Amino acid sequence: METDALKELHGLDLVARRMSRVSAILQWDQETYLPPAAVEERADQLADIEGIAHERATDPRIGHLLEKLGSTTSFPFGDESLPRLERDFLRAMRRDYDRRTKLPHDFVVSKARAEGLSQAVWVTARKSNDFALFAPHLRAMVGYAKKRAEYWGFAERQYDGLIDEYEPGMNENRLAALFGPLSFGLTSLLGKITLRPQPDSAFLLRTYPIVAQESFCDSVMNALGYDRRRGRLDRSAHPFTTSLGSDDVRITTRYDSTNMFSGLFSVIHETGHALYELGFDSSIRGTHLADGASMGIHESQSRLWENVIGRSRAFWNGMFPSLKIAFPDSLRDVDTELFYRAVNVVKPSLIRVEADEVTYSLHVILRFNLERKLFSGELDVDDLPSAWRSGMRSLLGVENETDADGVLQDVHWSMGAFGYFPSYALGNLYGAQFWNALRLDVPDAAEHVEAGDFSVLSSWLHEKIHCLGRSVQPEDLVRSVCGESLSISPFLDYLEAKYSELYDF
Amino acid sequence: METDALKELHGLDLVARRMSRVSAILQWDQETYLPPAAVEERADQLADIEGIAHERATDPRIGHLLEKLGSTTSFPFGDESLPRLERDFLRAMRRDYDRRTKLPHDFVVSKARAEGLSQAVWVTARKSNDFALFAPHLRAMVGYAKKRAEYWGFAERQYDGLIDEYEPGMNENRLAALFGPLSFGLTSLLGKITLRPQPDSAFLLRTYPIVAQESFCDSVMNALGYDRRRGRLDRSAHPFTTSLGSDDVRITTRYDSTNMFSGLFSVIHETGHALYELGFDSSIRGTHLADGASMGIHESQSRLWENVIGRSRAFWNGMFPSLKIAFPDSLRDVDTELFYRAVNVVKPSLIRVEADEVTYSLHVILRFNLERKLFSGELDVDDLPSAWRSGMRSLLGVENETDADGVLQDVHWSMGAFGYFPSYALGNLYGAQFWNALRLDVPDAAEHVEAGDFSVLSSWLHEKIHCLGRSVQPEDLVRSVCGESLSISPFLDYLEAKYSELYDF
Repeated sequence: METDALKELHGLDLVARRMSRVSAILQWDQETYLPPAAVEERADQLADIEGIAHERATDPRIGHLLEKLGSTTSFPFGDESLPRLERDFLRAMRRDYDRRTKLPHDFVVSKARAEGLSQAVWVTARKSNDFALFAPHLRAMVGYAKKRAEYWGFAERQYDGLIDEYEPGMNENRLAALFGPLSFGLTSLLGKITLRPQPDSAFLLRTYPIVAQESFCDSVMNALGYDRRRGRLDRSAHPFTTSLGSDDVRITTRYDSTNMFSGLFSVIHETGHALYELGFDSSIRGTHLADGASMGIHESQSRLWENVIGRSRAFWNGMFPSLKIAFPDSLRDVDTELFYRAVNVVKPSLIRVEADEVTYSLHVILRFNLERKLFSGELDVDDLPSAWRSGMRSLLGVENETDADGVLQDVHWSMGAFGYFPSYALGNLYGAQFWNALRLDVPDAAEHVEAGDFSVLSSWLHEKIHCLGRSVQPEDLVRSVCGESLSISPFLDYLEAKYSELYDF
Repeated sequence: METDALKELHGLDLVARRMSRVSAILQWDQETYLPPAAVEERADQLADIEGIAHERATDPRIGHLLEKLGSTTSFPFGDESLPRLERDFLRAMRRDYDRRTKLPHDFVVSKARAEGLSQAVWVTARKSNDFALFAPHLRAMVGYAKKRAEYWGFAERQYDGLIDEYEPGMNENRLAALFGPLSFGLTSLLGKITLRPQPDSAFLLRTYPIVAQESFCDSVMNALGYDRRRGRLDRSAHPFTTSLGSDDVRITTRYDSTNMFSGLFSVIHETGHALYELGFDSSIRGTHLADGASMGIHESQSRLWENVIGRSRAFWNGMFPSLKIAFPDSLRDVDTELFYRAVNVVKPSLIRVEADEVTYSLHVILRFNLERKLFSGELDVDDLPSAWRSGMRSLLGVENETDADGVLQDVHWSMGAFGYFPSYALGNLYGAQFWNALRLDVPDAAEHVEAGDFSVLSSWLHEKIHCLGRSVQPEDLVRSVCGESLSISPFLDYLEAKYSELYDF
């Protein structure tokens, strides 16, 4: 009887998820190959499919079955006689079902329309550096987010409800407690670095032919163990990873002949996301548990591969010879050490997505601080441009001239994704913790990396993290893998060790 | 009141068609970019979407509204007070709604499953040249087709019901009356040609670098007026055209470095289909009338561009200089005249898709003759391989050694598409009639072609044929555009004139 109900619930989950995959197919095509004149029609197609996906995911029968199976929103989940994995399944289903059904239909429709408009206006506003144009839409987005938090419910603050969407169990207070000392640690490290001379990195901006970039990116993806039978690499305006199916996880990047390394590190970053999505255990394949444990955990995988591994000396000791073969002209006077130093230059800059490992999290903390104040009412939308500038000054010591390079630079707020930014910084923290744990189990990790053999690393990540998918909560995952709670020290220690050597202080 | 019903019907049509477009997106991706391991999951996604599309297209509300609006399956359609276009809309809706709803749900499901299996077995059987392996599935396909014809109803013979699916108003007797004299005309023309020496064409099989092929195909598509803002060219195992939206009509081709011209003429062929799909008038955009008048009319557009225009002396007088620049090595000792003769070599061969203009329709007639006998019961599935051989001998004077090069060569039967083949030959006939009509209006058509200016031709085709879409019946279209009924003489006259000059008899 209970088995029947569980079976039926799995069936409903399957068809709902399938429609989300179809939506992912349409979106992927939209970002990669859609002819320009077809944009509007595609939006209608997407809205139609997303409507069906939403309908399936909020089927009242799901609520009825969850009730019957004794799921609750808090631990323990479901009947104790059920296998652990099924109880995790019930927890995840309950969480998402509640979040979806708590939002009234009219609210969802009007929010979706407002988001579409807001994004379109943001694109124009960024191009024309016109914050005033965007402000009313941003205000609307804040309004919708506040309402969303109210519908969902939250522990103490509205902002908590938004954070929890991306990082289950996280809240504003805990983030503030982490980000305060993190900010201090990063700023003081940055201070030491700025006293030292910068290595030469101008050669990174030489011309690197795009055909050769493509084939080099390809070989790196293959080396990292990305299975081309289960995915592919295409081009899009902004790099992303998307799951079109359990065996169809695609990544995209962009190539710029005078900015090769942005594209290459994007490929490594997205490969990190893809390995996670491709690594879910067969026992949770295609189910509600076949997802990342949280966005922070997801970002830990991409940023671990991109930075901790992809910007390490061991990585380039192994890779640089083939890079030099691929670009003999542009790298004629460059050796491994010079290259390694160049891709690790630390320098405060205006744009988050171009920031180095040390300053990146400061960009995130700026956004977190502003979001907090937006939702506590301390800050008005109209005050954001100046708050942004003073935040940049105090956190990074630089100040944007234009709003396009400031408050208008990211897409997130234009689509109402408040509470997402912290995931990036959490990814850095989790990543350093995982890296420490990995090296305890694999003391010769760097040697493997240098030899171009990434299989030991990816097997470890697969077994400890990827295969579990969403069956584990982020906090439990970190504790079980690392033997400690989420903490800033491993990340700060990692940076200190790496950059004191690089900048010789 | 009637307006409300019509409005509602248009709305139902719109959402049903939208889901067919989504299905086209998934299929296009499947043929072009799908990672190999994702094949099975994509089949599930497609089945799901097609299920929704079918459900929407067979919504009983459509039947109710059609009733209310007085549509019938025969002329005149709908209330005479309605505008002509709306009455055509009602006719097309009625036709498709009836065809779809007349098939019981269980039948559709079991047929779809059997087709999937049959196609998979056909692939293996063709590879291993094993007709016996495929025979039981082919027998099942014939069985389903017979049942389908019974459900749909037909004038005299089951086969009529299948033909009418692709060519409304056509039937076996009329085809037989056309194809008998057509076959005689083509065979006697072929006889004259085989008495004459063949021009040199070996250079067509030299190596043509694929990158240069791609860019040449690209330039040809652009010259023909294919709007890249509303479509794109990709690669797939078999060339095809598909509409992912009103402004998103994509074509595919394949490149083979030692068989360049197969890929190039495929591009011209598919561009012909695409121009039709992109040319529907805005008054029928996105509606049930935004489709070809019939498959024969559709093929007339592709084959007109591919052969009548694309293999004409005027075309290559204009294009050959740039072809020679693109492939200086492979064409070093070739001039326009030699090239023109080489791409028009007539020679009986085994494979339909590789056949020249003269023998192509004979391949089609072979299949038509076999289909007739299969459905009249004169021929059993087991007798097909030998009937194929004797048909080849009597129509083309050559005989296949293997079934892979014979009865197993085409995909159509494996998916139950009996009655489709005649469309290809009809396309040749319609094409020649349209070409005659075009030249009456545009006497200097050849000069435009030679000058590389195809806009006069495509405008004429657009205005006379494309813009009407499915609002016109194939027979009415030919009569109104050409002032005569479907006839074989224009096609035979065209071939006689072209090839008597080429082969000098």
